[in-house]
Amino acid sequence: MKIVLVNPNTSTDMTQRMVETASTMLPPGVELLALTADRGMPYIASRTEALIAGQLTLELLAEHAAEADAMVIAAFGDPGLVAARELFEVPVTGMAEAAMLTACMLGQTFSIITFSRTLVPWYEDAVALAGLQARCCSIRVPDCTFASVATVQNELEDELVALAERAVLEDAADVVILAGAPLTGLAERIADRVSVPLVDPLLAALGQAHLLARLRVRAPSRGRFARPDAKPAVGVAPALRAWIERSA
Amino acid sequence: MKIVLVNPNTSTDMTQRMVETASTMLPPGVELLALTADRGMPYIASRTEALIAGQLTLELLAEHAAEADAMVIAAFGDPGLVAARELFEVPVTGMAEAAMLTACMLGQTFSIITFSRTLVPWYEDAVALAGLQARCCSIRVPDCTFASVATVQNELEDELVALAERAVLEDAADVVILAGAPLTGLAERIADRVSVPLVDPLLAALGQAHLLARLRVRAPSRGRFARPDAKPAVGVAPALRAWIERSA
Amino acid sequence: MKIVLVNPNTSTDMTQRMVETASTMLPPGVELLALTADRGMPYIASRTEALIAGQLTLELLAEHAAEADAMVIAAFGDPGLVAARELFEVPVTGMAEAAMLTACMLGQTFSIITFSRTLVPWYEDAVALAGLQARCCSIRVPDCTFASVATVQNELEDELVALAERAVLEDAADVVILAGAPLTGLAERIADRVSVPLVDPLLAALGQAHLLARLRVRAPSRGRFARPDAKPAVGVAPALRAWIERSA
Amino acid sequence: MKIVLVNPNTSTDMTQRMVETASTMLPPGVELLALTADRGMPYIASRTEALIAGQLTLELLAEHAAEADAMVIAAFGDPGLVAARELFEVPVTGMAEAAMLTACMLGQTFSIITFSRTLVPWYEDAVALAGLQARCCSIRVPDCTFASVATVQNELEDELVALAERAVLEDAADVVILAGAPLTGLAERIADRVSVPLVDPLLAALGQAHLLARLRVRAPSRGRFARPDAKPAVGVAPALRAWIERSA
Amino acid sequence: MKIVLVNPNTSTDMTQRMVETASTMLPPGVELLALTADRGMPYIASRTEALIAGQLTLELLAEHAAEADAMVIAAFGDPGLVAARELFEVPVTGMAEAAMLTACMLGQTFSIITFSRTLVPWYEDAVALAGLQARCCSIRVPDCTFASVATVQNELEDELVALAERAVLEDAADVVILAGAPLTGLAERIADRVSVPLVDPLLAALGQAHLLARLRVRAPSRGRFARPDAKPAVGVAPALRAWIERSA
Amino acid sequence: MKIVLVNPNTSTDMTQRMVETASTMLPPGVELLALTADRGMPYIASRTEALIAGQLTLELLAEHAAEADAMVIAAFGDPGLVAARELFEVPVTGMAEAAMLTACMLGQTFSIITFSRTLVPWYEDAVALAGLQARCCSIRVPDCTFASVATVQNELEDELVALAERAVLEDAADVVILAGAPLTGLAERIADRVSVPLVDPLLAALGQAHLLARLRVRAPSRGRFARPDAKPAVGVAPALRAWIERSA
Repeated sequence: MKIVLVNPNTSTDMTQRMVETASTMLPPGVELLALTADRGMPYIASRTEALIAGQLTLELLAEHAAEADAMVIAAFGDPGLVAARELFEVPVTGMAEAAMLTACMLGQTFSIITFSRTLVPWYEDAVALAGLQARCCSIRVPDCTFASVATVQNELEDELVALAERAVLEDAADVVILAGAPLTGLAERIADRVSVPLVDPLLAALGQAHLLARLRVRAPSRGRFARPDAKPAVGVAPALRAWIERSA
Repeated sequence: MKIVLVNPNTSTDMTQRMVETASTMLPPGVELLALTADRGMPYIASRTEALIAGQLTLELLAEHAAEADAMVIAAFGDPGLVAARELFEVPVTGMAEAAMLTACMLGQTFSIITFSRTLVPWYEDAVALAGLQARCCSIRVPDCTFASVATVQNELEDELVALAERAVLEDAADVVILAGAPLTGLAERIADRVSVPLVDPLLAALGQAHLLARLRVRAPSRGRFARPDAKPAVGVAPALRAWIERSA
Repeated sequence: MKIVLVNPNTSTDMTQRMVETASTMLPPGVELLALTADRGMPYIASRTEALIAGQLTLELLAEHAAEADAMVIAAFGDPGLVAARELFEVPVTGMAEAAMLTACMLGQTFSIITFSRTLVPWYEDAVALAGLQARCCSIRVPDCTFASVATVQNELEDELVALAERAVLEDAADVVILAGAPLTGLAERIADRVSVPLVDPLLAALGQAHLLARLRVRAPSRGRFARPDAKPAVGVAPALRAWIERSA
Repeated sequence: MKIVLVNPNTSTDMTQRMVETASTMLPPGVELLALTADRGMPYIASRTEALIAGQLTLELLAEHAAEADAMVIAAFGDPGLVAARELFEVPVTGMAEAAMLTACMLGQTFSIITFSRTLVPWYEDAVALAGLQARCCSIRVPDCTFASVATVQNELEDELVALAERAVLEDAADVVILAGAPLTGLAERIADRVSVPLVDPLLAALGQAHLLARLRVRAPSRGRFARPDAKPAVGVAPALRAWIERSA
Repeated sequence: MKIVLVNPNTSTDMTQRMVETASTMLPPGVELLALTADRGMPYIASRTEALIAGQLTLELLAEHAAEADAMVIAAFGDPGLVAARELFEVPVTGMAEAAMLTACMLGQTFSIITFSRTLVPWYEDAVALAGLQARCCSIRVPDCTFASVATVQNELEDELVALAERAVLEDAADVVILAGAPLTGLAERIADRVSVPLVDPLLAALGQAHLLARLRVRAPSRGRFARPDAKPAVGVAPALRAWIERSA
Repeated sequence: MKIVLVNPNTSTDMTQRMVETASTMLPPGVELLALTADRGMPYIASRTEALIAGQLTLELLAEHAAEADAMVIAAFGDPGLVAARELFEVPVTGMAEAAMLTACMLGQTFSIITFSRTLVPWYEDAVALAGLQARCCSIRVPDCTFASVATVQNELEDELVALAERAVLEDAADVVILAGAPLTGLAERIADRVSVPLVDPLLAALGQAHLLARLRVRAPSRGRFARPDAKPAVGVAPALRAWIERSA
C-alpha cells in the first residue's frame, strides 16, 4: 500500500519531521511518499494563503494520484480537501478533518490548541466545513510569541500544556487537538501532563487514510464527489491540467 | 493487540458472521474476542430493547475490559456507548458512530439504509448523539417484509440496492451506510451495483477501534469521560458491579 | 386518578420527601403511588448509572403501568423516559423534561442549577434530548462540597441562591431550574431570594403528568411511540418481560 | 382561582365555543372570564392582523390582569404573548406555545394541521418563537375550501382526519396539533380516527395556565420578563396605558 | 424616487437628526419624506412598546405607501417590518435587518453595541428574525447611565468606543453595529477610533431601500408576502383600515 | 467612483453581457472596469474549478485593487471572496452572497434556480458560507440539457420560469434567485411570468458594492479581515505576490 502525503508549505524540514512521526504509526508494508510544495509560502497562515495552497496541493496530488492507495493533505486546515475528493478517485484525508472526527470517538467536545492567532479564522473554516461547530468547544492560542515555526513546539511547550488544561477546565473539553503541522509529535511528548486525550492531527490523518484504503470503497460515479467530466483548463500546471482535462 | 467485540443480541449466528467479516479486515497480530449476549433479545429493534441491551453490553465489556486494547459494540445504534466510554479506560467504538464518522471522510452527506421500519427511531437517536443530523440526508427502509434477520441481506438484496440508488438520486446522498448487524458483509457484495461508496458499519467500527488503539491516547482523568469514583451498585451483575465499585 | 411515581435511586428518604412535596401540589382525588428502586445506586450521578437506572425504572413502571393514569420518573435526567413512552400507553413525564418545558412558558432562557459537577454531563443529555440547547443558557454548580445528598439543599442553600443570581446576571437566565431530586422543595423556600421564577422539577413533573392525564389523549398506534410488537425478552425482570412479551 | 381568557378575534360565537370546551377541562373552583375583542378582525389570518391583534390582546389583558391568577391568549399564533409576559406579573399562556410544549411530552415530533393556507406563515412564526423547528415536522393544510370559520371543523372533518394520517405516515409525526381556534373541540371528536395523540390547543393553554397558577412562581424582577419601568404612552387605550405608565 | 421614512418614536428631534444624516447619503434626485409618530412612546425600549410601535408604523406607512418607491422603518428592532412587507407592495427596510445584512458583507461576525440594557431583548428578537444568531457574536451595553437619549451618543462616546474594541478583542467581532436611532451619525465620528468597520443602521436602511427601489423587483402575488385579500378591520386607523380592507 | 468587476471565467462574451446589464443599474459617475480571466476554464462548474478560479480572481483583483472603490467577483459561488476581503482594503462583493442577502430583504425564504446540476454543490457551499441554510428553501435545476452557456438563458427560458413557479408552490419560496453568470439579464425579461420577486445576482452584487463604497467604512486593522502581515509568496503571479509581500 502506498500513501502520498503532501505538505503544502515549502518547508522541507517540516516534511522531514512528519515522515519521522509517521514512521512510528504506519504498519510495515505501507510506503509513504512525502512531497513538499516548491512554491507558495513557508508556512500557510491566512485564508488567502490557504486558497493558494489549495491549488498547489491539487497540483502535487495530481502528479501522484495514479500510484496512490490513499492521500493525505498535511496541513491543519486541509487546503484543497473538497476539490481533491471531487477530482481523485482514491481516498483523501486532511489533518483537521481527521483529527476532529477521531476526537469525536474519544469525547463529546474537543478544543483546538494552536500557536498563532492568525491561524484561527482558517481553523474555524475547517470546523465549519466538517459541521462540527457544536462539538468544538474552543480554539485557543497562547498569548506569547515564538521565534520560529521549526521550534515553536519546544518554545511554547509549557504554555501549550497550560492552555490545554484551561480548555479542559474552562471550556469543558473532553479531548484536545494540537493543531498545526509544526506541533506534529508534541502530543506524545506531553500526553502525561494533560488530563484528557490528545490528538496528533498527522497521526489521525495517516491512520484514517490507511483505514479508508483498507476499506477499499469504490469511487463514486454519482453525487457531489463523482469525478467531473473533462474540461479545458488553460494555464493550469501540467499534471493537474491533464487530470482535469482527462488527457493523462 | 486484542479487540473485544460485544454482540448485544443473543444470536450467536450473527456473531459468527461478524467474526468472518472481521477476519477480512483485521491485520495479522490483532486478536478478536467476540462475545454474544446470553440474555435479552434475539434482535434489538426498539428503544426499550436498546436500553436493556445497553446494560447487557456494559456487563459483557466489564468482564473483559482489563484485557482489551480496544472494544467494539457490535450493534448499529451503539447501546451503552457513552456509558462504556465513561466507565472503561480503553477506546470503545460503536457501529453507528464509526460508520457515520467514516462516511464523513467519503462525502458530505450520507444516507442510512436498513431493513426494518422499527429500527428507525433508534437509528435517529444515533445520528443525533453524534450531532450529525445535517450530514445525514435520509434513513430509508424498503417497503417489503422478510422472513428472517439471518437471511434478510439476501432476501432484500435487490431492494436494498434500489433503495441506495434512490438515496443518491432523491436525497443527494454521497455515501450509503448499510445499517444493522444483519447486513454485515453485504456492502462488499453489492458495491458494484451502487453508484456511491458503501460503508459496512462493522468494518468501520473495527477499523476505528484498531486505529484508536494504535494511537495509544491516554485515558482522561478529567472531563465527561473520566472514570467515575467508586459507587455502591447493589443488584448489578458481578463484573459490572466490581467495575463501578472499583473493587475488582 | 392515580399517578405512579418512580424514584430510581434506592434512597427511601428521598422518596418520602418527594411525597411530602407532592402533597402540596396534587389536587384532592389524585392518588400518588410512590415507588423506590430496590437495587442500583443510592444516588445516580454518572451516565453509566443513568443507563442502569433506566432499566430499573422500566421494571418498576411495568409493575404498575396497568393501574396508572399517568407516571412520573422522579430523577432529573429522566432515566428510561423515551423507552417508557414507547412501552406504556399512559402518559409518562420526567423531572428534567417537565421542568424545562414549564420554564419555557416563564421566560426565554433557563439556567439549570445543581449541586454536583458529576451530574452535569447527564443533565446536558437531558437538554439535548429535549432539543432545548438554545434556551438553556447555562448549567451551573457551586464550587463547594457537601456532606450528604439528604441535607445538601440546606448545606448549600446560600451558595445555590448566589449561583441562581449569577445565572441571571451573567448568563441572562429568565428562569432558574433547581435540578436534582435532593433539591426538591428548595424552590419554595428560596423563591424570595432569587430575582427570577424558580422551577421545582418534581412539581413540574407531577403537574404535567396530571395535565396529560386530564387531556385523556389516546395512545398512538403508529409513529415512534406506538407500543412495539411482542418480543421474547429472556433474563429480563418478570413484569417488564411480561410487558415486552405482551404476555401479562 | 380565576383565569382570564382573551379571544383577540371579534367573533363571540367562537368565544362561546371556547367556554364550552373549557368547561370540560377546568376543575371545580376555577373561574373562567372569557373576553372577546370588540375591534379588529372577525378572524385573524395574516401577520398584519396578528400584529394588530397583539395590541388588542394587551388592551384586554390590561383591563383584567389585576384580578387574574393566570391569563390565556386564545388564538393559535399567540398574538402579544411575549409582550404580555413582560408587562403582566401573572402567568400568561398562548394556544400555540402551550400546544407545542404539551405535544413535546407526547412524542418527539408534531405536525400542525390547520384549515387555511393564509395562516401558515403566522404559525411558522409561533414555531420559531418557541425554538421548536426541529420538532415540528410539518404544517399542513387541506387543499379544499370551506364556507365559514364557524363550521369549518365540521365541513372539513374528513379532510382533516386524512391530513393527520398523512402527517403521521409521510412526515413521521408522533403527535398532531389541530391548530386555529375554529378547530377547538374537534380533537375529542376525531381522536379515534387518528393513529397518534391529538392536542387541542385551547385545552393545552388552559391546562398549562392552570398548572402555572398552581406553581405560584414569583414574577421576575430581573431578566427579559421583569416588568418595565413606567413610561409615558400617549394615545394608547386607557387600561393598557395605565399599566405601561404604572398609573393604575 | 421617493423614500418614506417612519420614525415610530414620538421624538421629532430624532427624526430631524435622521434627516440630516440621510442627506449625506442619498444621491440627488431621491426625495426623503420623514414622518414621526404622533402617539406612542418618546423612545421605544421594551417589547411591549415595540408591539405598539409596530401598529403605529403600519398606520403611518399606510398613509404614504401609494406614493413611495421604498419605505424605511427607522427604529433598530424594525417594528412592523414583517407585516409591512406583507401589506405593502413597495420594498420596506428596517434599521436592524439592513444593518446586519450589510455587516455580513464586511465580516463574518458582528457585534451590536447599544446604550441601554432594556433594549437588548428586543434587539435579540431582530437577530433571531433575520436568522443571523450564528453571525452575531454579542450584544453589548455600557455599564453606565446617561441623561437623555437626545445626547446619549455624546455622553457615552468614550464608553461606546471602548465597548466596540472589547467586542473586537473579546467576542471576535469583525464588524460593529451602533444600534438604536439615538446613535445615528455616531459611526462616522468615531470610525477612526475603532479597529473594525462600523455600520450606521440608518445609512444601511436607507442605502438598502434605495438599492431595492432601483432593482424594481415586482411585488409577489404568491408566497408569504403576497398582499392579503381584503378583510374588515373595525376600529383600525383610517388609512391602515383602508389598506387592509382594500377600500382606498 | 470606480468599481472593478472580475469575471473569473475566460469567456469575454459573458463579461460583455455583464457590462451591458450593469449599465442599466449603475448611476452616472460610476466607472465600471470589467476584467476577464485569461487562464482557467471557459465556465467554472466544479469545486475544483472554483478553487482554481479563486486564485485567478485574487490575481486580477490584485492588479486593480489600488484604484478601486469597490470590487465585484462576478461568478455565482464567489470564488476567492473570503480571501479577497482579507487581502484588500476596499469592499468586495460576490454574486451569490449579494443575491442571497438582497433576497433576505424581499422575503423569508429564497430558492436558487440554475441551469446545470454540476453547479449545485458549489452553490451549496455559497449558501453555507453565508450561514443562510435556513432561509434557502431549495436549489433547483431543470431536467433538460442545453447547447451553450452563451444561449442557455434563452434555450431554457420556459423551463426556468416553470421551475421558479414550482419553487414557489412546492418549496414555499418567497423570492427566486436566478443563479449563474449566464443567466444575467434574464430576471428582467421573465419577471412578469413569475409570481414572486426575482433577484439578478449581478445587479445585486453591483448594487451592494456601490452601497458599500458609499458607506465609506474603514478597513479593519483587527479581526478576521485585517490585512495579513507581509509574507514571502514564491511562484505566485506578480501583482498578487506584491500584494501578499506588501512590496507593491
